[in-house]
Amino acid sequence: MIYPKIPLAQTVIQLCKAKGIKHIVISPGSRNAPLTIGFSNDNFFKSYSIVDERCAAFFALGIAQQLQEPTAVVCTSGSALLNYYPALAEAFYSGIPLVVISADRPKHLIGVGDGQTINQPNVFENHILYSANLKLDLKEAETETQEELPIFKSLENKVETLIGLKQSIQEFNESEINKAINISIQKSGPVHLNVPFDEPLYEYVEKLSVQPEIVPAKEKSLAIEASILNKCIDDWNTAKRKMILVGVKHPNTLEQQWLDVLAKDDSVLVFTETTSNIHHEAFFPSIDKIIASLDNDGFENLQPDILLTFGGLIVSKKIKAFLRTYQPKQHWHIDVQKANDTFFCLNRFVETTPNYFLSKLLTQTHPVSSNYRLHWETVKQVRHQKHNTYLNQIKFTDLKAFDSILNAIPNHSILQLGNSSTVRYAQLFNISNTLEVYCNRGTSGIDGSTSTAIGCSVATDKQTTLITGDLSFLYDSNALWNNHIPKSFRIIVINNQGGGIFRILPGHKNTENFDTYFETNHHLTAEYLCKMFGLGYLTASNETELTNELQSFFSEGNQPKLLEVFTPKNLNDEVLLNYFKFIK
Amino acid sequence: MIYPKIPLAQTVIQLCKAKGIKHIVISPGSRNAPLTIGFSNDNFFKSYSIVDERCAAFFALGIAQQLQEPTAVVCTSGSALLNYYPALAEAFYSGIPLVVISADRPKHLIGVGDGQTINQPNVFENHILYSANLKLDLKEAETETQEELPIFKSLENKVETLIGLKQSIQEFNESEINKAINISIQKSGPVHLNVPFDEPLYEYVEKLSVQPEIVPAKEKSLAIEASILNKCIDDWNTAKRKMILVGVKHPNTLEQQWLDVLAKDDSVLVFTETTSNIHHEAFFPSIDKIIASLDNDGFENLQPDILLTFGGLIVSKKIKAFLRTYQPKQHWHIDVQKANDTFFCLNRFVETTPNYFLSKLLTQTHPVSSNYRLHWETVKQVRHQKHNTYLNQIKFTDLKAFDSILNAIPNHSILQLGNSSTVRYAQLFNISNTLEVYCNRGTSGIDGSTSTAIGCSVATDKQTTLITGDLSFLYDSNALWNNHIPKSFRIIVINNQGGGIFRILPGHKNTENFDTYFETNHHLTAEYLCKMFGLGYLTASNETELTNELQSFFSEGNQPKLLEVFTPKNLNDEVLLNYFKFIK
Repeated sequence: MIYPKIPLAQTVIQLCKAKGIKHIVISPGSRNAPLTIGFSNDNFFKSYSIVDERCAAFFALGIAQQLQEPTAVVCTSGSALLNYYPALAEAFYSGIPLVVISADRPKHLIGVGDGQTINQPNVFENHILYSANLKLDLKEAETETQEELPIFKSLENKVETLIGLKQSIQEFNESEINKAINISIQKSGPVHLNVPFDEPLYEYVEKLSVQPEIVPAKEKSLAIEASILNKCIDDWNTAKRKMILVGVKHPNTLEQQWLDVLAKDDSVLVFTETTSNIHHEAFFPSIDKIIASLDNDGFENLQPDILLTFGGLIVSKKIKAFLRTYQPKQHWHIDVQKANDTFFCLNRFVETTPNYFLSKLLTQTHPVSSNYRLHWETVKQVRHQKHNTYLNQIKFTDLKAFDSILNAIPNHSILQLGNSSTVRYAQLFNISNTLEVYCNRGTSGIDGSTSTAIGCSVATDKQTTLITGDLSFLYDSNALWNNHIPKSFRIIVINNQGGGIFRILPGHKNTENFDTYFETNHHLTAEYLCKMFGLGYLTASNETELTNELQSFFSEGNQPKLLEVFTPKNLNDEVLLNYFKFIK
Repeated sequence: MIYPKIPLAQTVIQLCKAKGIKHIVISPGSRNAPLTIGFSNDNFFKSYSIVDERCAAFFALGIAQQLQEPTAVVCTSGSALLNYYPALAEAFYSGIPLVVISADRPKHLIGVGDGQTINQPNVFENHILYSANLKLDLKEAETETQEELPIFKSLENKVETLIGLKQSIQEFNESEINKAINISIQKSGPVHLNVPFDEPLYEYVEKLSVQPEIVPAKEKSLAIEASILNKCIDDWNTAKRKMILVGVKHPNTLEQQWLDVLAKDDSVLVFTETTSNIHHEAFFPSIDKIIASLDNDGFENLQPDILLTFGGLIVSKKIKAFLRTYQPKQHWHIDVQKANDTFFCLNRFVETTPNYFLSKLLTQTHPVSSNYRLHWETVKQVRHQKHNTYLNQIKFTDLKAFDSILNAIPNHSILQLGNSSTVRYAQLFNISNTLEVYCNRGTSGIDGSTSTAIGCSVATDKQTTLITGDLSFLYDSNALWNNHIPKSFRIIVINNQGGGIFRILPGHKNTENFDTYFETNHHLTAEYLCKMFGLGYLTASNETELTNELQSFFSEGNQPKLLEVFTPKNLNDEVLLNYFKFIK
C-alpha cells in the first residue's frame, strides 16, 4: 500500500476512513495530487473520477442523499472549488452530508499572482455548516511562522521550538478535521476542508508517518422535554382538526404502525407529497388536486387547528399560500436539526425524529371524533374520479405523458425528479408505494438533477429512473460525462422545447420577447448527447409511441437508456390550467 | 415603450443605462421577470438569453474583457446565482467589470423553506469589489418595517411615515446601485446587486414612476508623486540591468513611442508573454525558451537590478521560479488598481497606467550603456534557430500542431486561448504582432474558455478563434448552447484524449491510477456537439491533414466552425520535454 508523503494528506485520508466516508469523487488536478494518490490507492475507498466539478459535486450529493452517509468531493485549487457551490447549497438546504475537500496553495503563495489561486478559506460562508481552514504542516510550519518566531538561543532551542510548532499545527489540523466531519454527520449537511499543500506533491511513502486522533461524532439525544411532550399530548387530544404535512423525506424512516394509527384518526388529515415517501390509502397524496380549486368556504373547512410538519421543503406552492392565509392555531415542526417557519406561525419546534415523536405522541393520545377527514376523503374521491375522466379526454401533452410514464415506472425502483415542472406534474398523480422518490428541493435548481440521479444510481442496487425537462437536462448535460453510469439507469426527458413552466406563469405568452427570454425556445434534442456518451436513445411524440416504448424501456440492456418525449408546447399550459378547472 | 411596474426594477435599469452598460446577459427565471421585461424591451440595451448561468457569466466576461466596459448578467433567485461564481472570480482576478444582478425574494420569504431561495446577500464576499444588498420598495416597505414602526397617532401620521420610509428606501437603493456600478468602473472588477422583488412580477407600465439620481463615477488621477517618480528616475538612470516583465495586457494600451525608446536601451530587457499584447523585435517574447535551460551562471547573468512589471498575471512558471530565487534589488509594479508581490521583493507600487508612467520615466531618463540586452539577444537568436530546427525534425504532436496552427491564424484577428496547456504551448512561439490574444489567467481555470471566447466574438468585428484542449472544451460544452455565435467564430480543439498537462508534471505516468485520476483518459470528440449546436466540424490527425484543413478553415462560411486536431498522447510530453533539452 502507498500513501502520500505529506502528513496533512495522510491525516485527512485517515480521518475520512475512520469516520466511514467511503465514496470519494475526485476531479483532476495537480495541487490535490496528495489526496488523489492517497484515496485512489486505498481499497477502503470507492473513488470516482469526474472532470466537471459542478457535476462531480451533484454526483456526490446523489450518493450521499441515497446512503445518508457523508460523501467527499476532492478538487484542486482555484475556480474548481467554486463549481461545487450549486451542489453545496443544495446539500445545505436539503440536509445532505457533503464533505468538500479542496487543495490549496501554501499561504505565502496566495494573493501574489500565482495561477489557480483564489481566496478559498470560508468561501462558502453563507451556506456551510463548518469550514475547516487547515494549516500547512512540517517544513512549511517553519516558513509560515518564521516571522513570528523568537530569536533562538541555540540550534537545539530552534529545533525544539519547531518540533513544538509542528506538533501544535498537526493537533490543530486533526481537531479541525474531526470537528468538520463530525458536524457533517451530526447535523447532516455540507462542510468544507481547505487543505494547503506545498510542492513536491507527487511523492509517496509506504508507511504512514502520522496517526491522527479520532474524535467520534456525538449522537444526539432524541428525548423530548416532558413539559413540551405533555403540552403536545393535551393539545392533540382536544383538537378536532389536525393536519400533518410531510415535506421531502427519506423512505422508510417512519414505522408503519404509527402511520396506521394516524390513518384511523378521523381528526387527522395527512397530506403527503411525491417526495414524502410515505404512503397510506387514508392519506392525501395529491395536495394540489385538493387545494387548487377551493373557494373561501373550502379553505375555511380545511383550515387546521394544529399543523404538524416534518421532512424537508414543501413542493406545493398552493398549500403554502393556503396555510399562510388560513393559518393554523398551532404549527409544530419535528426535526433533529432545524425548523422553517414556513407559514409564519411556528410555535413548537421539537428537536427529535418524527418517528420518535410519533412513538411518544401516539401512545399517549387517542383518536378524536371529528368529521374532518371524512369530509375531505369525499372531496379526494371526487377529484380522483374527475382526474381520471380528464386524463381520458385530453390530447397528448405533458400531463398525459406523465400519466403514462408514472404508470410504467417499475415497482421497487427509484424515481428521481427534475425541477420544477417535472416534480409539480408528478405531484398530481398517485404513484406506487413501492417507489422511492427524490428531487433536489433544497434550492429547487435546474442545475444538477441528472448528476444527482446518476450519483444515486451508483449507490443503490435498485434501478434508478430520472424524469426531467429539456432545459434541466441540457443544463446538466455534462452529467453524462461519467464512466460510472450503471446499465440499468434510465432517463426520460420531457421535451417541450423550452421552459414550459413559464407558460403557466402570468407572463405575456406568444411574443418574441417571451419566447426568447422566458420560455427560451430551442430545437435541441438529447440525440447527439446520447450518441456522444453511449446511451441508448428512444423517442416518442404521441401516446401510442410512448406506450410502445415504455413497454421495453426499463428492461435490461447493454447500456443506460434515454427516452425523449416530445410534447406540444402550445397545448401543455392550456391542458394543465383546464385540469384544475375541470377537477373542481 | 414599456417598463416593469416595480420601481426598484426601473431604478436598476435606468442606472445601468445612465452608466453605459449596454450588454445584458439574461438567464430565464420568474423572480427576475421585472428586470427581463425592462432590459429586453429597451433598445438601448443589447440583451442575450443564455440558460446555463455558468456559461452566461463567462459569456458576459468575454464581452466585458473585449470592450473594457461593464457588462451585466441577470438571473433569478436561488442556485442560479451560484453558477456565476467561477466567472465572477475570474473577473475579480483579471480586473474585468462584470455587474452581477440577481433577483431575490422579499426578506420575509428567505429562510422559511420557500423554493429557489438561498442566502444571497454578500454571497461572493471573498471575490467581489462591492455587494449592494438592495431593499424592497413601495408596499413592501410597509411589510418589512412593520414591526419596527412606532404606533401611529393617526392615519395621516401613518401615511406620512410610510411615504418617508419609502423615500428613504428608494434613496438607499439608488445610492447603493450608483456606488456598486461606479466601483465596477473605477476599480475594474466584479460587483453584485442583489435585488429583492415581491409578486406580482410580470406587470408593466408605460411611464416610469421613478427618476433615480445619477452619481457619476470618479476618474482616478494618474499623477505620480514627485518624490517617487524622482527616485524611479535616479534608479533607472544608474541600473545596468533592467528587466521589464509584462503580464496579461489589453492590446493597444501602450504608445509605440515608449516601446521604441525601451527597445533602444541596451540596459533593458523586455520580456513579454503571448497574453501581453506588446510587440517589438528587440523584445523577448518567449520567456520559457530563454529560461528553461539555464544553469546557475545563466540565472546570475539574467538577474536584474530593477524589475519593472505591469499587466495582469504572469503565465510562465519558470520566470516566477527564477525571479523568486534570483530576486532583483528592486521590483516596481505599475497599475491603477493593485500590485501583486509575485516575487516577494516588491518595493514600489506606482498607482498609474503603464503608459503614463513610461511617458514620465522615459522622457527624463537616458539609455544606460550595458551588455545586458545584447548578451541575451544572442541567446534568443540561438534558441530561435534551435526551435526551428527542432520543429522540423519532430513527429506530429501537440507542439507541432501549435506551430502549424499559430502560423495559420489570420492577421488582425483575435486569438482566445484555453488553460493551461494551450496557453503554455502558445508561449513558445513568436506570434504575429497583428493578433490580439486573450486568456482567462485570473484564476487560470479550464471552466469557461469557450463561453468567454464566444462573448468576445459578439463584441468585436474581428474574427475570433479559440484554441483549447479537449478537457477544457468538454467542460464548457454548454457554451455552444448560444444563439449569438457569429458565423466567423472558430474553435480549434487540441484533442490529446485527456489532461495532457499531467504527463508533463512529475506524476507516475502510465499506471491505471494515473490514467483515471490525473490524465482522465477519454475517447470523446467534439463531433456530436458540433452536430447538435450547428457548427461545421473538421478533423486532422497528422500534419498534412492539418495543413490542408487550415487553408480554408478561416474563410467565410454559413456557420461557425470547429477543427479538432487529434495528437498522440503518449508522444506529446516526451516531445515537449525534449524540446527544452534541445534548445539549450
